Amino acid sequence: MPKVYLAIIHYPVLDKRGDTVATSITNLELHDVARSCMTFGVELCYIVTPLPKQAGIAEKLIEHWASGYGALYNPDRAKALTKIKIVGDIDEMMQEVRAAGNPFVIGTSSRQGSDTLTYEDLRRRILKDDRPFLLLFGTGWGLPPVVTEQCESMLMPIRGRGDYNHLSLRVAIGIILDRILGERGEDHERDDRSA
Amino acid sequence: MPKVYLAIIHYPVLDKRGDTVATSITNLELHDVARSCMTFGVELCYIVTPLPKQAGIAEKLIEHWASGYGALYNPDRAKALTKIKIVGDIDEMMQEVRAAGNPFVIGTSSRQGSDTLTYEDLRRRILKDDRPFLLLFGTGWGLPPVVTEQCESMLMPIRGRGDYNHLSLRVAIGIILDRILGERGEDHERDDRSA
Repeated sequence: MPKVYLAIIHYPVLDKRGDTVATSITNLELHDVARSCMTFGVELCYIVTPLPKQAGIAEKLIEHWASGYGALYNPDRAKALTKIKIVGDIDEMMQEVRAAGNPFVIGTSSRQGSDTLTYEDLRRRILKDDRPFLLLFGTGWGLPPVVTEQCESMLMPIRGRGDYNHLSLRVAIGIILDRILGERGEDHERDDRSA
Repeated sequence: MPKVYLAIIHYPVLDKRGDTVATSITNLELHDVARSCMTFGVELCYIVTPLPKQAGIAEKLIEHWASGYGALYNPDRAKALTKIKIVGDIDEMMQEVRAAGNPFVIGTSSRQGSDTLTYEDLRRRILKDDRPFLLLFGTGWGLPPVVTEQCESMLMPIRGRGDYNHLSLRVAIGIILDRILGERGEDHERDDRSA
């Protein structure tokens, strides 16, 4: 079974003007991404924030759903949130992932760069490689060079039809997981991969 | 150019126990779905709610972003929200869509039924058919029989890996649009379809 990890970076990321900032964690981000991770068999999604208050709010939310009243009310949601882990910085996360093997670190962006990894390539690599895969997603206006320089490859941006490419991060993560891990019901070469 | 319409149904839908209820519109639902519609070239997304208060809140939100302060602050968001239209019931919406031609009405569900339409089939039909396509999405615990009976086909559920299939509706809509309309950068047979 391939091991795929995600990281949603809240710092360092770019803002509209290209400055480096820290962004806020949103409640729905955690729920939606947790459910996508469960659905597509992702090992763990790291939420990277150095802000103790932000981390505290996220931990409290996870606690509520995972073992508080929420766990009784909606056990599917509780199960999904076990896929989320809050960490203080990228180094701390990298250290953890390395315990599972030397990760293939992949950056994502909504802007087309040069020499990007296609979804088809990544899907094939995930099938045959023993290394863990770590996909980095930037909130705000995306990952700064200091982060993308740590990536072995950049994944091709999602293209729809036309030039508008302002998908919400929650939705973009779902689409990317579907492209690299989803079953389509007609793709027989990939049947051996289903759980 | 194929014409694809979406409808997010807030009434009538099922609740956890199988009763028919009306659900609430969420702020993020509108933004995320609007951005997905813009990205994948969807004509319009109808939000179906019979509750005047709910419709009022949604209209106010769209107004704020489309022409109020929000339009100056974030014009990409403003543009996306032109893809959203609030309607009072399914009949009203059907009447509107029929003005563009006799629609192929497709229901969606996270539960596997019999005789479902595959993504590959739907993609092909969208390419060659002149009819408008209307995809219905149920909030809550999904579409009741009174709605699915009006559908010509049901779309295959999204399968990830394993049995967990509790994607958020926002994310599921994005994945479905990507599967039937998205470009992958390696799918040459579909190059003629790009805008």
